[in-house]
Amino acid sequence: MKTDILALSVGDPAGVGPEIIAKAWGQLRETGPAFMAVGDLQSLAAAGGGVKVKAVTGPVEAAKVFADALPVLDTPLQSPVIAGQPSSAHAAQIIRCIETGAGLALSGAVAGLVTAPIAKAPLYEAGFKFPGHTEFLAELTAPAPYAGARGPVMMLTAADLRATLVTIHQAVGTVPAALTIDRIVAAGLVTAQALKTDFGIAQPRLAVAALNPHAGEGGALGREEIETIIPAVAALRARGVDARGPSPADSLFHPDARKTYDGVLCMYHDQALIPVKMLDFWGGVNVTLGLPIVRTSPDHGTGFDIAGRGLARPDSLIAALRLAAEIAARRAAS
Amino acid sequence: MKTDILALSVGDPAGVGPEIIAKAWGQLRETGPAFMAVGDLQSLAAAGGGVKVKAVTGPVEAAKVFADALPVLDTPLQSPVIAGQPSSAHAAQIIRCIETGAGLALSGAVAGLVTAPIAKAPLYEAGFKFPGHTEFLAELTAPAPYAGARGPVMMLTAADLRATLVTIHQAVGTVPAALTIDRIVAAGLVTAQALKTDFGIAQPRLAVAALNPHAGEGGALGREEIETIIPAVAALRARGVDARGPSPADSLFHPDARKTYDGVLCMYHDQALIPVKMLDFWGGVNVTLGLPIVRTSPDHGTGFDIAGRGLARPDSLIAALRLAAEIAARRAAS
Repeated sequence: MKTDILALSVGDPAGVGPEIIAKAWGQLRETGPAFMAVGDLQSLAAAGGGVKVKAVTGPVEAAKVFADALPVLDTPLQSPVIAGQPSSAHAAQIIRCIETGAGLALSGAVAGLVTAPIAKAPLYEAGFKFPGHTEFLAELTAPAPYAGARGPVMMLTAADLRATLVTIHQAVGTVPAALTIDRIVAAGLVTAQALKTDFGIAQPRLAVAALNPHAGEGGALGREEIETIIPAVAALRARGVDARGPSPADSLFHPDARKTYDGVLCMYHDQALIPVKMLDFWGGVNVTLGLPIVRTSPDHGTGFDIAGRGLARPDSLIAALRLAAEIAARRAAS
Repeated sequence: MKTDILALSVGDPAGVGPEIIAKAWGQLRETGPAFMAVGDLQSLAAAGGGVKVKAVTGPVEAAKVFADALPVLDTPLQSPVIAGQPSSAHAAQIIRCIETGAGLALSGAVAGLVTAPIAKAPLYEAGFKFPGHTEFLAELTAPAPYAGARGPVMMLTAADLRATLVTIHQAVGTVPAALTIDRIVAAGLVTAQALKTDFGIAQPRLAVAALNPHAGEGGALGREEIETIIPAVAALRARGVDARGPSPADSLFHPDARKTYDGVLCMYHDQALIPVKMLDFWGGVNVTLGLPIVRTSPDHGTGFDIAGRGLARPDSLIAALRLAAEIAARRAAS
């Protein structure tokens, strides 16, 4: 049975996940969006500082209890959790929670999946093979049908900024070789489509950032613009995307510039993340575009250094839940 | 004879320089800081939209007339100026104006030099050999004595942000190889000293940005932090600089982060320029640190596309004049 509720995978139980989930529930229980945590009930109760948790059998029951208690699809851990101390003993459960959430989203039993942070190291020790959530979810959802340009493409949102990335977690020195026309075009197509279907913008304007200072200054400060990015923008326009650029990255993010586009395609991690975190350090959201399921997450990590101390802020998780609900509603209505 | 007045080289007369100089004079004539334009009187009068210009013999006379007219140390052009059309025929005069301003600043006849924008291409055609103002002024002032760490190091300021650059105008792909321990330490020493002498901060805190996303994540996303930047920070600390980092660049520029340091050392152009232009797109200032003279400039270019149309904003030039006056006053008092 379909519901409007979101699944929320708890992520690493030794991080800030359980704490911010409990805090988010406290803030959203009356207004929504409603969500069902997928994780270990005991550690959620322990980290929740007294919030009422309730084991549920699935999304339908979760939707009923949400206003009264934090609903948990209990997925018990096999070993105790010590806040701030990640353990590969938790890896199988962490992975299972993500798989469960993705499955519920694929089936339509939940409206979308929000993922609390995971850490790579303990998962790698247990044999996990993916760079992160995004790639794992792409694999899990690959068999499902999906109309349109397929991702995954990572988008970060903050305030009025929607920035997608052509390259993500790689050293700056390896970025130029990783930028190909095909890769930029693929990311641009997914971004343009998502701006329509997921963000409700009928005719999205897509700014494309340059790689080099002054957009390469005609080749004097790098040839990637001439050889790769300019042809990619032309190819996007030939495919019907209102793409503009490449523009010098330092002129793309001030308030007047942001009014000239609906999304911006960035070439590397910090080019997008510096503006996103300047605009909203606590409330940025990571959205995976081009998947058959709706998926968002907070744009921060596990915070092992502050886990278990009551200091973690739920702003980004709350924003991620709200955005997932918005996107799900748009996809359902289209 | 020493004066408090600033010299202002007009830069490329076909760009927005003459127009913004006239506008800046209109806004500063009553309050100061006072300045003397070094350039072609006729083209200043023509671009100035009717402001009163007056040829002067030098800084002493300029200081006397400033409240009543824009004082110009006339340095005539040998061929006519067409707004928006740079010409190598103007190159010798453009260079001479910079040399004159630098000489006046070196002698102490003016308190400092502010430079309006130049374009490289027409100067290169005429044999100019420097990447820009900064390197040219370093050469012109090299014979002069200077106590302390010598630059040039480029700083950009906007709002509460003071960002210096280890590498400046180069392709992103060439940045990793250009980052050496010696180069980072040299830039850090100049920055720390300038924060004391030029900005009046007794015990400056210097943040150092990482190159790679997540500061390289322990080497997984690049080894420059481990091999170069961390040793450079240690070397700076051993030299008595309160240097911290390297920090992930995306966490360095939001308001709370900016309160934790007085200056930030950036590894590449857009890492500094994206935040600077987000904080103040129109009013950012470029300061050259570690020179025997005070030198600032607007952080924009010649604007040939809008030259002669009355559209150019003098915000950045005015901020550059004000900052030069402040730095000059601090150096004079120390």
